[in-house]
Amino acid sequence: MDVRAAVATAAGKPLEIMTVQLEGPKAGEVMVEIKATGICHTDEFTLSGADPEGLFPAILGHEGAGVVVDVGPGVTSVKKGDHVIPLYTPECRQCPSCLSRKTNLCTAIRSTQGQGLMPDGTSRFSLNGKPLHHYMGCSTFANFTVLPEIAVAKVREDAPFDKICYIGCGVTTGIGAVFNTAKVEIGSKTIVFGLGGIGLNVIQGLRLAGADMIIGVDLNNDRKAWGERFGMTHFVNPKEIGKDLVPYLVDMTKTPADQIGGADYTFDCTGNVTVMRQALEACHRGWGVSVIIGVAPAGAEISTRPFQLVTGRVWKGSAFGGARGRTDVPKIVDWYMDKKIEIDPMITHLLPLEDINKGFDLMHEGKSIRSVVVY
Amino acid sequence: MDVRAAVATAAGKPLEIMTVQLEGPKAGEVMVEIKATGICHTDEFTLSGADPEGLFPAILGHEGAGVVVDVGPGVTSVKKGDHVIPLYTPECRQCPSCLSRKTNLCTAIRSTQGQGLMPDGTSRFSLNGKPLHHYMGCSTFANFTVLPEIAVAKVREDAPFDKICYIGCGVTTGIGAVFNTAKVEIGSKTIVFGLGGIGLNVIQGLRLAGADMIIGVDLNNDRKAWGERFGMTHFVNPKEIGKDLVPYLVDMTKTPADQIGGADYTFDCTGNVTVMRQALEACHRGWGVSVIIGVAPAGAEISTRPFQLVTGRVWKGSAFGGARGRTDVPKIVDWYMDKKIEIDPMITHLLPLEDINKGFDLMHEGKSIRSVVVY
Repeated sequence: MDVRAAVATAAGKPLEIMTVQLEGPKAGEVMVEIKATGICHTDEFTLSGADPEGLFPAILGHEGAGVVVDVGPGVTSVKKGDHVIPLYTPECRQCPSCLSRKTNLCTAIRSTQGQGLMPDGTSRFSLNGKPLHHYMGCSTFANFTVLPEIAVAKVREDAPFDKICYIGCGVTTGIGAVFNTAKVEIGSKTIVFGLGGIGLNVIQGLRLAGADMIIGVDLNNDRKAWGERFGMTHFVNPKEIGKDLVPYLVDMTKTPADQIGGADYTFDCTGNVTVMRQALEACHRGWGVSVIIGVAPAGAEISTRPFQLVTGRVWKGSAFGGARGRTDVPKIVDWYMDKKIEIDPMITHLLPLEDINKGFDLMHEGKSIRSVVVY
Repeated sequence: MDVRAAVATAAGKPLEIMTVQLEGPKAGEVMVEIKATGICHTDEFTLSGADPEGLFPAILGHEGAGVVVDVGPGVTSVKKGDHVIPLYTPECRQCPSCLSRKTNLCTAIRSTQGQGLMPDGTSRFSLNGKPLHHYMGCSTFANFTVLPEIAVAKVREDAPFDKICYIGCGVTTGIGAVFNTAKVEIGSKTIVFGLGGIGLNVIQGLRLAGADMIIGVDLNNDRKAWGERFGMTHFVNPKEIGKDLVPYLVDMTKTPADQIGGADYTFDCTGNVTVMRQALEACHRGWGVSVIIGVAPAGAEISTRPFQLVTGRVWKGSAFGGARGRTDVPKIVDWYMDKKIEIDPMITHLLPLEDINKGFDLMHEGKSIRSVVVY
């Protein structure tokens, strides 16, 4: 069938809106009509050519929400009409990772997904008979897409697509890093580096977790009001403090009873490896945990003195917020509908598919938190 | 009073056996007659001059066992005649760290200890009226020493000094890293880098924890038999495998059910930052935990791609095995007396104080696991 899509034809070029062809779902697959999709930095990372594993031509987009319109043979967990969120991290519930009880990084379809293909090694998208690559197993920059059954989370039908699409990546990544990866306790002192969409979602996760101190760090003073909107208690602009950032942050977290200082939990939401080091070293001696969420440029490396770890700091990372897609994403949709978390104010721009490149421009200019394409 | 000591007069020079003067214990302090002391790489690190915080002249030694011979005012937790192990990591049970329930790194006397002084800012040791520095709060290279009450662990009286002195550092560091820091579960796949004394103690900790696979890595083939003696299941000499170490180790840990491979837990016991990176990267995607135990050269840094952490590996460190000295050390002495762990075969050399420099020579030559000075 013909579908409308924004096609990434080559690295560094704007997306092209065109009609492409989509095959129906094969065994274990579902076709989803995408109703809305967010535009994420990861799409930009790949489109720019910076992603060494980027493939072209491809249909990008991985932060969507929609309705199942067809299912292939053997599909049992969803049916036509179900509302779903596509999952770039699937959940097969049968691979060693899903069965480990320790990670969300299901490996059932990892190799084909990385090649821009469906699990059978072929693509469902084509243009004039030539295959187009899938992207992150999702390809939500098309109004219809095909996904493996294990890569969709069934969600409640009263949730608005143009908001819950954000749960497909940014919301879950931020909130999940707090609950699943860091396991922040009530009363914690925390620092969030980078107050973009992920950082703001980390902040609202920390508020929900009952953190006492939520310090936001960003070079852009406009982000102070944004952070406070979601629970940030203190703002630091590293350019304006007139001294080194790490000791400044450590001093902020000192109390009369604890003159060592340092955060219980820190989160890097920048992708900058220098900031990742600062985030680790701003942790409290003995127990501080630093979580890397941001995606670093290809080849970039993090460094520190091993003494930082030997004296009790822990360095870890989080992908998709440590969340199991089919199990946890529906719960996060419930949290949104129950007003435990907020999404609406973060969706700063709604665009038609034709204006999708404008969404990338807004991101570059730092003017948007999240732009959402509505089909 | 006059005591016999091996004095570190200057960096890089052999210890000098001489008679020095020791003041009695002040308030909150105890005097201990040291009966035996191990010679540890950390003593060598400082004596060599490589330790940027090393102070001279000093009485080194931090791995001892002995008997309380005098107590200062206000001491309540030990009394004359008690058998004790000095603690370079004290346990005050009142500072933010002790009360955190998250770390063993008590900070009650950290600053004075780092300056080679007792908590009141003075030294109890002197030579001809000039003060000598204490070392790591212990100074067990003297047949009598003075320690803060919070820096001695009371242990059972039937335990032999020339064995349990090793619990004052090496045994606890290795076994504790398994139980307190990594929290290894039964059935785990594990890798230990560096089969010196610490590595062998990690291995026997892993055996006690029920690990399925205990791979030992060392450049010295003589260490294969040593590792097997304490529970190692596989030995790898990186010089002899003819390929890169990390993929080789990952392949070893693959199973028919898990073709991703990688260890559940790895331990660096080398102090080499390149090995620390290998230890992290040999961990299983999604959940592998790497623990740094070795002390790196001053200024050396660890590095990796953040992707290693974002895909679920965790980098942490361990000091004194994460053990709380007064609480946990007596239990480890019990484990030794109950034959749950072994120490005797690791004590390869017993020396009189006069031959203490020979103990350092044996360490350099790789001929000893642990040399113990018996007073």
